[in-house]
Amino acid sequence: MKKGNMLIAQSGGPSMVINQSLVGAVLAARRSGSGVGKIYGALHGIRGILDGAFIDLRKETTATLEAVAATPSSALGSVRHKPSAEDCLAVFRRLRQRDIRYFFYIGGNDSAETVHILHEEAVKNECDIRCFHIPKTIDNDLCGNDHTPGYGSAARFVACAVKGDDLDNRALGGVKIDVIMGRNAGFLTAAAALARTEEDDGPHLIYLPERPFSVTRFVRDIKAAMRDYGRCVVAVSEGITDRRGTPLVAAFTREKDSHGNVQLSGTGALGDLLANVVKTRTGITRVRADTFGYLQRSFPGVVSPTDALEARKVGEEAVLAAVGKNMASGSIAIRRKPGKRYGVRFEVVPLHCVAKVTRRMPDAFISPEGNYVTQAFLEYARPLVGALPPCARFSQLRRCGGGPTPGKRKKA
Amino acid sequence: MKKGNMLIAQSGGPSMVINQSLVGAVLAARRSGSGVGKIYGALHGIRGILDGAFIDLRKETTATLEAVAATPSSALGSVRHKPSAEDCLAVFRRLRQRDIRYFFYIGGNDSAETVHILHEEAVKNECDIRCFHIPKTIDNDLCGNDHTPGYGSAARFVACAVKGDDLDNRALGGVKIDVIMGRNAGFLTAAAALARTEEDDGPHLIYLPERPFSVTRFVRDIKAAMRDYGRCVVAVSEGITDRRGTPLVAAFTREKDSHGNVQLSGTGALGDLLANVVKTRTGITRVRADTFGYLQRSFPGVVSPTDALEARKVGEEAVLAAVGKNMASGSIAIRRKPGKRYGVRFEVVPLHCVAKVTRRMPDAFISPEGNYVTQAFLEYARPLVGALPPCARFSQLRRCGGGPTPGKRKKA
Repeated sequence: MKKGNMLIAQSGGPSMVINQSLVGAVLAARRSGSGVGKIYGALHGIRGILDGAFIDLRKETTATLEAVAATPSSALGSVRHKPSAEDCLAVFRRLRQRDIRYFFYIGGNDSAETVHILHEEAVKNECDIRCFHIPKTIDNDLCGNDHTPGYGSAARFVACAVKGDDLDNRALGGVKIDVIMGRNAGFLTAAAALARTEEDDGPHLIYLPERPFSVTRFVRDIKAAMRDYGRCVVAVSEGITDRRGTPLVAAFTREKDSHGNVQLSGTGALGDLLANVVKTRTGITRVRADTFGYLQRSFPGVVSPTDALEARKVGEEAVLAAVGKNMASGSIAIRRKPGKRYGVRFEVVPLHCVAKVTRRMPDAFISPEGNYVTQAFLEYARPLVGALPPCARFSQLRRCGGGPTPGKRKKA
Repeated sequence: MKKGNMLIAQSGGPSMVINQSLVGAVLAARRSGSGVGKIYGALHGIRGILDGAFIDLRKETTATLEAVAATPSSALGSVRHKPSAEDCLAVFRRLRQRDIRYFFYIGGNDSAETVHILHEEAVKNECDIRCFHIPKTIDNDLCGNDHTPGYGSAARFVACAVKGDDLDNRALGGVKIDVIMGRNAGFLTAAAALARTEEDDGPHLIYLPERPFSVTRFVRDIKAAMRDYGRCVVAVSEGITDRRGTPLVAAFTREKDSHGNVQLSGTGALGDLLANVVKTRTGITRVRADTFGYLQRSFPGVVSPTDALEARKVGEEAVLAAVGKNMASGSIAIRRKPGKRYGVRFEVVPLHCVAKVTRRMPDAFISPEGNYVTQAFLEYARPLVGALPPCARFSQLRRCGGGPTPGKRKKA
């Protein structure tokens, strides 16, 4: 075991369980014996390292750590910053000043890219530092993973929200469009389908960034759903693109972060655009759109227990690999065990497998019509999200037998 | 006790606990002995009565009733329709056909107006029918009530959402604007303040429909908050108006319901407008807006226990008044008992006290600067919402002493 101090930080969009990973890593380091000296937390990710903004995580009581673990959003603060070669050298100076030999960075694929860049620069500059990425993203788009910590809880929020929204739409009718987070991958939007328990429940249509979005097709699908159900609830990913791959929302914003990503969230523009299209082209009067926005990733009290547990575990596993097994770098991947009963194992994978690239929904999860998900997706997602709060209807208002499957196009 | 059948229906916007009132009334009628014969539920309020769309609520098991009670949104469906004199005569024909002598309508002030109109027409037409309004509105704007069933749970959703959003903003910085429901009354937007537990927590500013909204003042307040906290979370009511009383959102919509209300919800336009104003006038780059939308009133699992209990009780009390006490008409009002410990009593009040008119936030609940709430409001709202899920910070990141009070303007 290599002796040295440890540094941990958080990066990218927050999640409901990112602090579970942080606390998992800190407690594992505390348990690891004399290998790890001080345990530093840097504020606002790489930015805090560059600025020397550290706190001493050995000073926090276990009770505080556990309370922070159960709190949504990034307790150390976050950042979206891709380090330059110059930044890396400044980071190494900071690490050397404090004799830091272990570096852990919790985040998504952009954060994994940051760890990868740092690791490559460290090797180049003969800087002796273990670099580990701890996975987190509500988008569920990390390569080499069955799923990612943060997804299950955000998916739970989405499923609950669409369940409630479907009940609301059932009461007042018309068309309801829900815009859900997800830049390149539709996993989170797809989770809306978990809201559906009875045959005529919504969502009746789901549009994902994995399939080009056609306005004509969208309007036709809504008209069909209105015929079949007398109302229509639609889940749309904020990342849907036209045939050329341009995000529909790009017409409204030019804001980009340092990883080159266009701002998609924090605006209701896409929902309003789609609602106006439906109003104009169908003559349906009650058309409403909601954009779930940041609530999806930081809502206190809506947490998937499985997600919280696994988020804790990836933090622990990263420390175990770096400190216990003396590995030089890597990311912790979640793999699902085969078999009917849900179970996972954790593996260390090379950083380049996770960095930058994004995973998209496999074809097997998307309906042939491209406007819904498959049974395979529901089976994949259900154990990650957990049982939803029960909702009931009067027995006389249940619709039994013979109804159409959502998203299927009827023959004209 | 007058013998006859009973009819109950739901109207206006759904809430998380409107089915508690429905089930409370049904179970109370079942317990009332031989006075009430059949218990009908009309689908989609007055519309279902006109169409003869009824279900028989004696056919539902207690288990189903209890499961429905715990489900958000209006289980019988809802409507926004103000009955004409002609509608009333058609309603009376339907009631006579089924020997209905008891009529209960669950909803807000527009629904109370409907009951009031029906009652007056019934008297005029010598139609022997007990007409009762059962209160429900997330806006909390019914006159003669301390508060209204539905408010506590919606306020709980808002407080949780703003709590999570404040943690999110703390992690990534900038300005975050949250647009919250509330046409004329700011009670629901004000509930955002319950998210604040530590001194530098958001929301840092709250704008209510009770005070004219000035863009200049708004921008100045945000700049001040950015100076004080390095970030800013703002809660804004969708119903804010300019000095002339025109809703800011009216610029984007012309849609009105039959009670004459402009559509405010189901669009992100106001949030986007305000975010653009802040970006343009302050130069702050990270400015985001979320519109909480329909999630506020129909989110499964986010319920205030006090609200659920009281919603059940107003349904029971309405039946007790109409059937047990043989009163001709009225609405059930919630009154708070004096004293430190929270407690309420229920009273029958005349329909005209509740119908149509809306209650606004009292001045004592709004800060002198008009951009925050007072301690008196917090004490009023806390017992209605209940304890929020706990959230924690690292002890080293707590800001102690000397910080400014949100919403207070500093001297230049």
